[in-house]
Amino acid sequence: MWSTQDVSDTKNMLDKNKKSGYWIVAVAVILCFATGILIGRYGTTSVADYHNFDVRNLVIDEISAEEIDSNLRYLTSTPHVAGTAQDLLQAEWMRDRFLEAGLDEAKTVPYDVLLSYPRVGVMNKVSLIDEQGRINYTTAGRQPPLGSPEEFSDDILHNFNAFSANGVVEGNVVYVHYGRKKDYEYLLSRGINVSGHIALIRLGAIFRGSKVDLAERYGAIGVILFSDRLEKTSQNRNNTYPDSWWMPGTGAEYGHVGRLRGGDLLTPFYPAIESAFRIKEENHPGLPKIPVQAIGYEEAEVILRNISPENSAPTKWIGKMDAPYSLGPSLRNPGWRVRLDVSTVNERRTTFNTIGILRGSVEDDRYVLLGNHRDAWTFGALDPSSGTASMIEIARVFGKMKRDQHWRPRRTIVFCSWGAHEYGLVGSYEWTQQHATVLGQRAVAYLNVDTAVSGNRTLFGNAFPTLKQLLIDTAKLIPNPSVHEIESGHKTVFDTWLAQSRDRDNVDQPMVGHLGGGSDFEGFSYVIGIPAADFGYMKNGVYPTQYSLYDSYHLASNIVDRGFVHHQAVARMWAVAAVTLSDSVILPFDVLAYASYLNHSLSLLHTKYGPILQQNGVSLKHVRVSVDHFMFSVKHFSENELKNVDQSNIFAVRRVNDKLMYLERFFIDSKGLPDHPETNHVVFSTSSSDSHNFNTFAGLVDLVVQVENKTESNDPEIWSKIRHHLSVIAFLIGEAGRSLNGDF
Amino acid sequence: MWSTQDVSDTKNMLDKNKKSGYWIVAVAVILCFATGILIGRYGTTSVADYHNFDVRNLVIDEISAEEIDSNLRYLTSTPHVAGTAQDLLQAEWMRDRFLEAGLDEAKTVPYDVLLSYPRVGVMNKVSLIDEQGRINYTTAGRQPPLGSPEEFSDDILHNFNAFSANGVVEGNVVYVHYGRKKDYEYLLSRGINVSGHIALIRLGAIFRGSKVDLAERYGAIGVILFSDRLEKTSQNRNNTYPDSWWMPGTGAEYGHVGRLRGGDLLTPFYPAIESAFRIKEENHPGLPKIPVQAIGYEEAEVILRNISPENSAPTKWIGKMDAPYSLGPSLRNPGWRVRLDVSTVNERRTTFNTIGILRGSVEDDRYVLLGNHRDAWTFGALDPSSGTASMIEIARVFGKMKRDQHWRPRRTIVFCSWGAHEYGLVGSYEWTQQHATVLGQRAVAYLNVDTAVSGNRTLFGNAFPTLKQLLIDTAKLIPNPSVHEIESGHKTVFDTWLAQSRDRDNVDQPMVGHLGGGSDFEGFSYVIGIPAADFGYMKNGVYPTQYSLYDSYHLASNIVDRGFVHHQAVARMWAVAAVTLSDSVILPFDVLAYASYLNHSLSLLHTKYGPILQQNGVSLKHVRVSVDHFMFSVKHFSENELKNVDQSNIFAVRRVNDKLMYLERFFIDSKGLPDHPETNHVVFSTSSSDSHNFNTFAGLVDLVVQVENKTESNDPEIWSKIRHHLSVIAFLIGEAGRSLNGDF
Repeated sequence: MWSTQDVSDTKNMLDKNKKSGYWIVAVAVILCFATGILIGRYGTTSVADYHNFDVRNLVIDEISAEEIDSNLRYLTSTPHVAGTAQDLLQAEWMRDRFLEAGLDEAKTVPYDVLLSYPRVGVMNKVSLIDEQGRINYTTAGRQPPLGSPEEFSDDILHNFNAFSANGVVEGNVVYVHYGRKKDYEYLLSRGINVSGHIALIRLGAIFRGSKVDLAERYGAIGVILFSDRLEKTSQNRNNTYPDSWWMPGTGAEYGHVGRLRGGDLLTPFYPAIESAFRIKEENHPGLPKIPVQAIGYEEAEVILRNISPENSAPTKWIGKMDAPYSLGPSLRNPGWRVRLDVSTVNERRTTFNTIGILRGSVEDDRYVLLGNHRDAWTFGALDPSSGTASMIEIARVFGKMKRDQHWRPRRTIVFCSWGAHEYGLVGSYEWTQQHATVLGQRAVAYLNVDTAVSGNRTLFGNAFPTLKQLLIDTAKLIPNPSVHEIESGHKTVFDTWLAQSRDRDNVDQPMVGHLGGGSDFEGFSYVIGIPAADFGYMKNGVYPTQYSLYDSYHLASNIVDRGFVHHQAVARMWAVAAVTLSDSVILPFDVLAYASYLNHSLSLLHTKYGPILQQNGVSLKHVRVSVDHFMFSVKHFSENELKNVDQSNIFAVRRVNDKLMYLERFFIDSKGLPDHPETNHVVFSTSSSDSHNFNTFAGLVDLVVQVENKTESNDPEIWSKIRHHLSVIAFLIGEAGRSLNGDF
Repeated sequence: MWSTQDVSDTKNMLDKNKKSGYWIVAVAVILCFATGILIGRYGTTSVADYHNFDVRNLVIDEISAEEIDSNLRYLTSTPHVAGTAQDLLQAEWMRDRFLEAGLDEAKTVPYDVLLSYPRVGVMNKVSLIDEQGRINYTTAGRQPPLGSPEEFSDDILHNFNAFSANGVVEGNVVYVHYGRKKDYEYLLSRGINVSGHIALIRLGAIFRGSKVDLAERYGAIGVILFSDRLEKTSQNRNNTYPDSWWMPGTGAEYGHVGRLRGGDLLTPFYPAIESAFRIKEENHPGLPKIPVQAIGYEEAEVILRNISPENSAPTKWIGKMDAPYSLGPSLRNPGWRVRLDVSTVNERRTTFNTIGILRGSVEDDRYVLLGNHRDAWTFGALDPSSGTASMIEIARVFGKMKRDQHWRPRRTIVFCSWGAHEYGLVGSYEWTQQHATVLGQRAVAYLNVDTAVSGNRTLFGNAFPTLKQLLIDTAKLIPNPSVHEIESGHKTVFDTWLAQSRDRDNVDQPMVGHLGGGSDFEGFSYVIGIPAADFGYMKNGVYPTQYSLYDSYHLASNIVDRGFVHHQAVARMWAVAAVTLSDSVILPFDVLAYASYLNHSLSLLHTKYGPILQQNGVSLKHVRVSVDHFMFSVKHFSENELKNVDQSNIFAVRRVNDKLMYLERFFIDSKGLPDHPETNHVVFSTSSSDSHNFNTFAGLVDLVVQVENKTESNDPEIWSKIRHHLSVIAFLIGEAGRSLNGDF
């Protein structure tokens, strides 16, 4: 063995000279020096350990609430809708902030994509037409300025829902509650068919794009969307924005109603770069064929009041609207009808991501990515600018540490500011589609902050199993932003989090949720298999004025986060998690948690869907065998290679980290899920059927939900898909486990 | 920066003690020792350089012709058809040889796959039936033993073509030459339609499975395959096996006629492991629906002589058969007909790969793979056992070096012995399907030797551009096995190779060809994007008795390679190339060659298909831009990072090697090629339409060939596919280039 030989040659040389005692001293010094070179050059445990708190405390000290405030002030000074002039302006502004901070590289990255806008100077309207064709009532079509001065901006787009078809339709109205499949089935059981009528649908429960899709399938000629007062106002229904964070009655939610995942609708699977091939817009399965318009709840009340009272809605369908809940389709006054007049049009426009890079000192070919979208329907003060303002502050602090302390992360840190998120995660999907191969090879983890602060009660966190513990450990380091909470003994963000939301299975830990869908981690996690996390401060889920004009600087600075201390806490959390991922010699991935997660999920799957599978002769046994093997493999790996890795052996460190980093990739089926080829993760992709009940093995669950009462003999094709997909799940989990301890 | 701090602390400590002169000596020793540790532990330039000839000379010295002879003797002592008892026996024997050699791990790996066999005790026959239904002539159905004693074995399967449909058909016969599309078109121009008749098709030019596919499409009820004497005999037509290597008239080619790439027909894309889902055999697009049978040329002459002479074949269709070449369909005698009686059946059987692992000393998570199939239709002395015998010898020598010299390769070496290759590369495809993710992460290169010795004139080599120079450089190290060649001044394998086949563009180099298709690199290269090479000794392409009973030990030892010196040369070549790949600090990948190859290929594409593309408004400009960028990137990378890499910086070495290793992966489109979803490499997948003319950008060429004279307006779908695929090619080449010098 060459290496042994060389070392022994050197030893022999030493032996020959070992004549006097001072050699003992020399050898000691030699060892120090050799160790010094090794450590100095490549950085091992003692300099950049997961448990080295110095870098992180410095980060915590430096992150400034004032700076975040100042960033947010700029970001919210104009609307910044994707594809408009402000998209580019803010993208360039961010690039300049990154360069000013001292990042090694920063640039804007354009994609030419299909977006959608209301026609200039024309309102989208919902009107009541009387029996003589006269307009009795019309919605405002825009939201009146109420709070911040910038709400008067001429650049604010009229109310619209991106990707709506345009056109004018008239007819009766059916109230379809949340517009889920079961809602239509209930209506049919009452003899009410939405076909030929306009559907009035309450927002919530499922994605609005799915509501429009289902309405179209059931034959509706148009869709009116509204939010029920139940979700938008408090007990004191007049206490709304600008006096509180509650939604005023004229506030309408923007929001796209496209249907397909995967970013730009014209370039599925591939990036919308200059050379891209674009499919045709005509008959595009991702674009609705009927007009859609969201209106304020006061406006929706007018429509509700005009529905004939003969068919009352069931109790469950009743919220807090100041109107009776009748199902329709007839209107109260004979001969009247509702008119939906939408002139929204699809347009090819350019949207911009901004990418900033701080190169790693040791492993610059390993990426820790931080992402947040930048575009909003108007000001997006909380969603997403609270995150954007925080990201810029993190870049400033890292740049300062680079300059002042000569610090560099061990691995490369990449800042990603996404464009056109609101149009279906377009910027992030296009970018991950473009760089899928290199990201698959080099990306360690993706830390998403969509809305840093949507409320001020507590931190929340969603993550892949490997990163859950990282969020928890990081939260323990972050000072509590609430004076009140500190006074009640909750010194850290962790303490409040734990008090607000305990993990049922481990009461000493706060609950870290599933990632779910709807934010920019999708392209990273569900297509490429990069572990991701998403977090922020919240009250209890979404905030009332989200997607409206009233998500303004006034809301952020005067109502939700005075002093920007919660912003500061999230920025600290984000920065410290990034440092931990980038500087730890051994990646802080909790693989044992992955094993127990899989085990637990399979048990749930067995409980919920085992019987129907078994009745049709389909067994989960191969998945069980694979999960058992995976648990064994993870345990063996953790107790042996991971535990005993010689941190001075650079290759051993790299090998063990590669195993950790690449583990998630094994769950990717490059062929795509059976009915969702745009996603590939067999464990974690979002479910289109059962997302509120069971989040894991979505490809399988979506199939099983479809079969309902169909046996193998009356729907052999779907049962074949189930058998096939189960075999793929078993196979991939098996290979994932195998990768940790061996080769083939 | 932490590291700087640590180093300077150590230096300060030294400075304080630097009081007397002996410290100079001490420091010198320190440096030696530190260097020794670094080198010893991780292996850098001086110990395992690409230009370190010691390891390789030792390998060359140790590889023994006698050992290879002895291995081949065993391997050819029985037939070893996939899925039979000998498949497992020989797989286990190889495993035991690997363990005996001292490899770290060796095992047999089973796959349960669809294979095909003649029915026991029943011959597949081609007969002539007279007007009264009497059998006038029948083919033998088996090949008579002529040479080696083992040819009398009871285990020899009757003549059959795997995956043929079974059944009896009767009819007239049409001679269709090679059975290409253009041959049918010519026949139709002569008013001859094969529909309802039996097609008599000459082997060669295209894959026999494609012949059957086309025959079926043109309505043939059965296919008789034969080899023309032109390819199978010499001037002296009686000088055949066992006196020479020429084919006797009773020798028939076995060979499967399945149609789909991707290994096992029942488990496309996924491995045929225990948990696999299997698609149904009924109506399987990969299985012929008509019976097929290959016969000897003497037997084919009987059929030819019985075809009515009224339609003479054109000159180009005439070979050297001892019979007139008439087209048919009528037979010479009124009322006569040909009967094809095939009882071949498909069966699920288990085939076995044997995998042996010699673990790397430094980067054991990087794999250099050596592969060869083990199964044959009978003895397969040359194809594949010449390779198998050589692989075992390489394992023996590496094991000996491990034991005696304490040598280990820097990277892990994996020996792969494939089962069921003859049924469509089944063993290798299933294995690569199972381990695609880990191979994508860790495989450096795959060195295939299908048939080590198919002739004794010269080495040939086919490879991806990055590995071409490696083959050439390796050949320079290998002593010439031919005494006659040495005497004429050709000392090395390289010298003869150069004399026999010069590269037109570089006359100082021998020609290294394209990989093409049909051997076990397909799953590695065209699906995962692992650079591969294939080589061996040959005369001029295939050898006459390939796929027949007469590919025997007698042929190998007495006719083709007396003394086994050519086997020895190939084994040396294979072993040295493997050592170079595994031991070089910087991977010996010629990325500049990739750039000029792409540039050249695009020019060829432009010349050949530019006009038709341009006429339809399709431009190659985006591909041109990407190729130009790729050339620039490769040059920049080569002249900067690659040239200046600090070989003592372990991370820098790993990073540059990862860039080299992963470059090929960028050409993989996980969605698959437009009309061949089973292959994914946009530059190098095999073409189904134009493989003899243009090998590159096969996905594109296959589409363009289909359009022929169809303009965009009369076939918009295919032109969309062309535009789409071109955009994918441009995109992927662009990303490949980008990966070498930056991130995103």
